[in-house]
Amino acid sequence: MLDNLKQQVLEANRALPHYGLVTFTWGNVSGFSKELELVVIKPSGIPYEKLTLKDLVVVDLDGNVVEGDLNPSSDTPTHIVLYKNFPDIGGVVHTHSSWATSFAQAGKSIPCLGTTQGDYFYGTIPCTRRMTDEEINGEYELETGNVIVETFETNDIHPLEVPGALVHSHAPFTWGKNPNEAIHNAVVLEEVAKMAWRTYLINPDISPMDRVLLDKHYLRKHGKNAYYGQK
Amino acid sequence: MLDNLKQQVLEANRALPHYGLVTFTWGNVSGFSKELELVVIKPSGIPYEKLTLKDLVVVDLDGNVVEGDLNPSSDTPTHIVLYKNFPDIGGVVHTHSSWATSFAQAGKSIPCLGTTQGDYFYGTIPCTRRMTDEEINGEYELETGNVIVETFETNDIHPLEVPGALVHSHAPFTWGKNPNEAIHNAVVLEEVAKMAWRTYLINPDISPMDRVLLDKHYLRKHGKNAYYGQK
Amino acid sequence: MLDNLKQQVLEANRALPHYGLVTFTWGNVSGFSKELELVVIKPSGIPYEKLTLKDLVVVDLDGNVVEGDLNPSSDTPTHIVLYKNFPDIGGVVHTHSSWATSFAQAGKSIPCLGTTQGDYFYGTIPCTRRMTDEEINGEYELETGNVIVETFETNDIHPLEVPGALVHSHAPFTWGKNPNEAIHNAVVLEEVAKMAWRTYLINPDISPMDRVLLDKHYLRKHGKNAYYGQK
Amino acid sequence: MLDNLKQQVLEANRALPHYGLVTFTWGNVSGFSKELELVVIKPSGIPYEKLTLKDLVVVDLDGNVVEGDLNPSSDTPTHIVLYKNFPDIGGVVHTHSSWATSFAQAGKSIPCLGTTQGDYFYGTIPCTRRMTDEEINGEYELETGNVIVETFETNDIHPLEVPGALVHSHAPFTWGKNPNEAIHNAVVLEEVAKMAWRTYLINPDISPMDRVLLDKHYLRKHGKNAYYGQK
Repeated sequence: MLDNLKQQVLEANRALPHYGLVTFTWGNVSGFSKELELVVIKPSGIPYEKLTLKDLVVVDLDGNVVEGDLNPSSDTPTHIVLYKNFPDIGGVVHTHSSWATSFAQAGKSIPCLGTTQGDYFYGTIPCTRRMTDEEINGEYELETGNVIVETFETNDIHPLEVPGALVHSHAPFTWGKNPNEAIHNAVVLEEVAKMAWRTYLINPDISPMDRVLLDKHYLRKHGKNAYYGQK
Repeated sequence: MLDNLKQQVLEANRALPHYGLVTFTWGNVSGFSKELELVVIKPSGIPYEKLTLKDLVVVDLDGNVVEGDLNPSSDTPTHIVLYKNFPDIGGVVHTHSSWATSFAQAGKSIPCLGTTQGDYFYGTIPCTRRMTDEEINGEYELETGNVIVETFETNDIHPLEVPGALVHSHAPFTWGKNPNEAIHNAVVLEEVAKMAWRTYLINPDISPMDRVLLDKHYLRKHGKNAYYGQK
Repeated sequence: MLDNLKQQVLEANRALPHYGLVTFTWGNVSGFSKELELVVIKPSGIPYEKLTLKDLVVVDLDGNVVEGDLNPSSDTPTHIVLYKNFPDIGGVVHTHSSWATSFAQAGKSIPCLGTTQGDYFYGTIPCTRRMTDEEINGEYELETGNVIVETFETNDIHPLEVPGALVHSHAPFTWGKNPNEAIHNAVVLEEVAKMAWRTYLINPDISPMDRVLLDKHYLRKHGKNAYYGQK
Repeated sequence: MLDNLKQQVLEANRALPHYGLVTFTWGNVSGFSKELELVVIKPSGIPYEKLTLKDLVVVDLDGNVVEGDLNPSSDTPTHIVLYKNFPDIGGVVHTHSSWATSFAQAGKSIPCLGTTQGDYFYGTIPCTRRMTDEEINGEYELETGNVIVETFETNDIHPLEVPGALVHSHAPFTWGKNPNEAIHNAVVLEEVAKMAWRTYLINPDISPMDRVLLDKHYLRKHGKNAYYGQK
């Protein structure tokens, strides 16, 4: 029953180096079966080009391995928190892609400066606060998920409208309805981070794009009146 | 009769990823038959590598589809406005290429800082004003074309002498006598945007190149006394 | 007996262009046999793609060539100083990789701004002081090694916890338990230099990551309680 | 008799796209036969991948075409001025490579900030003054050569010790003992321009490298006591 999801997770992990999002094994993708309440995720530290279907690890929402011989990604608890708290997401991607990570290291959110971001992210891509010593010394990877969820709740952001976040001093996470969409959003995040960085460097005083223009672009691709693409 | 133009439009669309001008499907090229008053354009949301001749969409100058089974690019009305208002252009390219888009997001025109730009663009590549709420909520893509045309009229710029513009908070459009020339100008725009950005960062006080040098370079490649290249 | 080490050194030198760390022949890798007290190193000025096992040069810890027909890298004395002073290292890499070299030219150390660096380097990657005229006019390449060693001693840095340094006005050196690990660290150094540079440019006031977070990340990959990767 | 030189010029022109130094046909290489006082140069506007031996144009030191059916590069008079004034050079390269061109557009010379530059350029790579209206409206390409020569004479720079220059508001020229060495220097110039730019952005107050270190590096690769590479 998980065969299809495993195939998606395998392909999405292989897409990480294809899109230039990772150095070595610095990234992982998971997929979520809502019916089975199971997560399929990359094993820790295995190169993408050697990854096969049977290397993938299946864990339940308590983090117990229910299938697979390898250790799951050390970031697995973060993925699980996102699946538990963000209804309707079916794929999560974590990378250290360099432009997005630079914003995360700078502790800066990425405001929506143009239509490229507005086509995919309905506003600012937030950076979390720094984590506390207690969170870091506690269940660190789980708390990493919690600080993302807190950021979205505090700022009243809908996770499917803004499918990504930057973890302070760390790196980005993105998500989507399935692993492929989560990868797609990871690529977009890296591209808009790059352009936002260059925009600020050439014009530090620029203000975000007009809200009306953001509505126009986001809603022509998303929602019931969308008219971009083919039916 | 449109066979030749369709072939040009197909090749020009495929050139977008070849020249690194697009991520996913973030760009489109059209060609214009002045005799038939018809525009051949990429369908919306179709990957370049899957694009075939019969996927291309033919529309008239009112935007009616006269041939093709797919939806034309959502940017089609912008292309049409440019063909209607800029005499003698036969190809239009729209991308979100990252350097030019960074200037568009910054709301900054690209002054002519050196001969690389001066060989193709006879002066500053202008950025439009921000569009009004009425324009965005009205016929948005058509108004996008109008704000480009307004920018050229207000600043008295000849569209074949400066074959490109940046739309504020959005991205670049370029054009030319045919689709291939429009692609060529899109590549040049991206390259000169990159170099202008780097020039300003290392010397914020630099003034544009001398007008006499600009005349020399532009006119040795364009106009009746041109002497660059082969006869 | 050196066959295995030579193979490692050959592969590590070939990895330099693979990872984009070198222009022309601007880099070299060596390996060290602690038992034999011998260093295997790239010959000077030979292109990586032409390099064969028998081109490699074997030198003793006094710098005498004990095997090989070619001149060893002119940087050989620097490598030897590092092997003599940094116990347990078995591979050294020198490149002029462009991001790390830019920090070296700027005379700036790279503070630990995020988990990417913290996963490999347990703190700041130091830049040496400028070398004195006496050092430069003396045994220059040997003194280059000495100024690295001095930097680690003065700042009480453990060379296996921070496996790399920037030589002022020059370029980076990295090391590891073997040539492959030294290459791995050279790739990481270049990547974190790039991200640190971009981080500072977008937020000049950013402070280093929290010490607790650094401990967490470094120690989950290194040391007796590490839990990253497979057993 | 020119067969060997033609082969070198052909290969050097093909090396321009290989090293990423050119967009479209924005660059050209020539070679000089001191015995015959003839220059072999790329024809104007021909793509590198289509270039063949018989497309190359041979001109004398007055600029007269003595062999070849195509127009020589429009920059031919600049090349000729350099061959006439810089004794012992046998190859000239002109590109619009983006990092070096950014410095040329900024009107800034590239001081020697580190050993990478010092290994090839014995000091600052100078940028010329802006050309006068008379020079531009006169024999422009010849005057471009003259302003380079003037820059070297005024600053007492030896053209083989600093084998390149930036022409203000334009782009770089490099040279060497033969076309291959001129290409080599064009690659180095682009690389050191990139690193100098990044160095200044992260540390605007950095001063050039110590003169003693520059002497050390330049002279260990050049001159009678050189010890880099193989005999």
